[in-house]
Amino acid sequence: MADAVVDTVAPVPVAVVGAGPAGLMLAHRLGRAGVDTIVIDTRTRHEIATTQRAGILEADAARDLIETGVGDRILREGHEHEGTELRFGGRPHRLDFKELVGASVWLYPQTDVFTDLADARERDGGTVHFGVKDTEVLDITTGAPRVRYTAADGSRHEIRARYVVGADGSRSMCRNLVPEDRRVRYGKEYPFAWFGIMAEAPASAPELVYAHSEHGFALISRRTETVQRMYFQCAPDEPVDAWPDDRVWETLQARVAGEDGFRLKEGPILEKTVLRFRSFVQEPMGWGSMLLAGDAAHTVPPTGARGLNLALHDVKVLADVLLRALGTEGEAALAEYEPRALRRIWRAQNFSHWMTRLLHTPPGASPFDLRRQLGELDNVVGTRAGRAYLAEQYTGWPAASRG
Amino acid sequence: MADAVVDTVAPVPVAVVGAGPAGLMLAHRLGRAGVDTIVIDTRTRHEIATTQRAGILEADAARDLIETGVGDRILREGHEHEGTELRFGGRPHRLDFKELVGASVWLYPQTDVFTDLADARERDGGTVHFGVKDTEVLDITTGAPRVRYTAADGSRHEIRARYVVGADGSRSMCRNLVPEDRRVRYGKEYPFAWFGIMAEAPASAPELVYAHSEHGFALISRRTETVQRMYFQCAPDEPVDAWPDDRVWETLQARVAGEDGFRLKEGPILEKTVLRFRSFVQEPMGWGSMLLAGDAAHTVPPTGARGLNLALHDVKVLADVLLRALGTEGEAALAEYEPRALRRIWRAQNFSHWMTRLLHTPPGASPFDLRRQLGELDNVVGTRAGRAYLAEQYTGWPAASRG
Repeated sequence: MADAVVDTVAPVPVAVVGAGPAGLMLAHRLGRAGVDTIVIDTRTRHEIATTQRAGILEADAARDLIETGVGDRILREGHEHEGTELRFGGRPHRLDFKELVGASVWLYPQTDVFTDLADARERDGGTVHFGVKDTEVLDITTGAPRVRYTAADGSRHEIRARYVVGADGSRSMCRNLVPEDRRVRYGKEYPFAWFGIMAEAPASAPELVYAHSEHGFALISRRTETVQRMYFQCAPDEPVDAWPDDRVWETLQARVAGEDGFRLKEGPILEKTVLRFRSFVQEPMGWGSMLLAGDAAHTVPPTGARGLNLALHDVKVLADVLLRALGTEGEAALAEYEPRALRRIWRAQNFSHWMTRLLHTPPGASPFDLRRQLGELDNVVGTRAGRAYLAEQYTGWPAASRG
Repeated sequence: MADAVVDTVAPVPVAVVGAGPAGLMLAHRLGRAGVDTIVIDTRTRHEIATTQRAGILEADAARDLIETGVGDRILREGHEHEGTELRFGGRPHRLDFKELVGASVWLYPQTDVFTDLADARERDGGTVHFGVKDTEVLDITTGAPRVRYTAADGSRHEIRARYVVGADGSRSMCRNLVPEDRRVRYGKEYPFAWFGIMAEAPASAPELVYAHSEHGFALISRRTETVQRMYFQCAPDEPVDAWPDDRVWETLQARVAGEDGFRLKEGPILEKTVLRFRSFVQEPMGWGSMLLAGDAAHTVPPTGARGLNLALHDVKVLADVLLRALGTEGEAALAEYEPRALRRIWRAQNFSHWMTRLLHTPPGASPFDLRRQLGELDNVVGTRAGRAYLAEQYTGWPAASRG
């Protein structure tokens, strides 16, 4: 990058690359403790706020948002779900989270979490620059890393910081700064994707419906009283154009059909997208003065709704560690971040992988594997231990405490 | 088969092909209800009694053996285990079955179950012919099936029966009598086997130890106070000759090693065998007047010790169904057998597959899968829900009742 005119702003303790929920929640947590941040993102605020993502907050994540003053709208507009429905073999099976593990989840879209956090940053006078370009992170192996970027107005800036956090999502640039010969990337691709729609229709069910059928997986979620979010398993290269509304509804109806006569309430389809996903973890989750959080360090398949929750757990631990590192403990405190974050990350990686395998029909699956899968579903919903095992993972684990 | 001189014995209600625990326990159960059987097996009694098999009885199976009068020795010589140890990452983790799911298992070798049942047949005047040859099962699509065989003394016999039960093990001849175009065979092969040893040494641990290590799986079980049974993961075509005692002990010690300093107590190795295994189910579990039970209809990998327990559950259901079919209900009662048996079979297939995947290191596994596996182990032993999920499956499910 040519070194054009650079306006160096006053140094901040922490520069954050990425203004998704992970980056903003970290800035919010640090801000509440009196630590200034500058957050930048290449996307516009509008772009982030309108890109449909997950919709389920685990109880602890919702409580953290509420307790730190960015969750009022969760309580007003979110929906607490005390269970979910698994459908297979044409039958509904309810998992009662509350009764099984004393926990619940909140239906509240990630886009709204983002908006609440962005509003809070504005309200609290935090600095967030959207729509920047040409981001460069420099000198991370020193105690004085810098972040350079071109602002939306074309001006060039440099942030000097003590620490840089890479919260720049699943296509993270920051994670590439960990030297290639010192990092390990763990990954797994899946032979299917999700076809996601947003439809204008009333809710078809009071809670989420995860459906396994001989035709493949489907998930019935919702956004508001009048807008519903639904997904069905498709090929990773499925062309959206091949799916007129009628075909979408026919497919979804077939996947949730059952002896109880369950039918989805149909309506105009507002949006259609093919969502590819993979399992991914990079270790280490940082290098020198730079630390990675959320999707920048790890992504999961969407089955089981762990992604956003995992990111929020990362920054909870990271905020704690950074505050101590900036305080009396110094850089040594950082060593705690990765082990505390990773335990949950690998549990969640396994859970997301397991829920995905449990509910999808992989192309070319053997008859044994398909029957075994029904045996697994029967054991999961048909025994209290199985229901509790799924419920505990779905509603999240206790937050990692200091070693 | 040439139709030589055939001695037709008096008809019996049920002819049983196979004198392993499944066949003998069925004969025992029917005998207690006053129904005569003739059981035949191609193996000698000595051969069956000395072929090492599984060693864990779930609580319900042990109770059934005790309550039907063939379990006195379980109480005298068996060991009730209220938990087991999982080792991974160099650390021991105990699963307390009793506390988690209120159940236990019994360490009691399958060979002893066989001997107890064979003795009981003798004591009760039941007919069992070992060491027969040239078994033929005829006319199973009629109400008068026949079983022909050549006795150990070379004489040829025919058993006329109302029903024939094929309990002739994992290389079943009977299951081939279900027409090829009417049966489905579900199967899965594994890229590893177990290297099993019998060693003269004191017990190394009070309960079974299931060990996952970077080197592969190992299982530490026992037979008696002075004879121990141990296994470690090996290649399916591993040559036994390549394993002198020193190498066996070195391998086993490495797989159970940990920060607690755990060491196996070594001693002379009395027996070495490579045990191959697979997942297998045939449906339907019968045809006409013939019904299949135990390994003849399904086999599981040994991880999780489901095989013998599943066979005993089959014959519990089968005895109930046969007694009703021979009583007032007639043949219609048979229709219940398969659905009642299959539910547990597929649960157990899944559990055995899962335990196998959880603990073995497959050749060529991706770094992601190996780390995910540790995340899964951590979640299984690190949460109460995970421990209960494993414990419930390991100790067995409630017996299937009438639909």
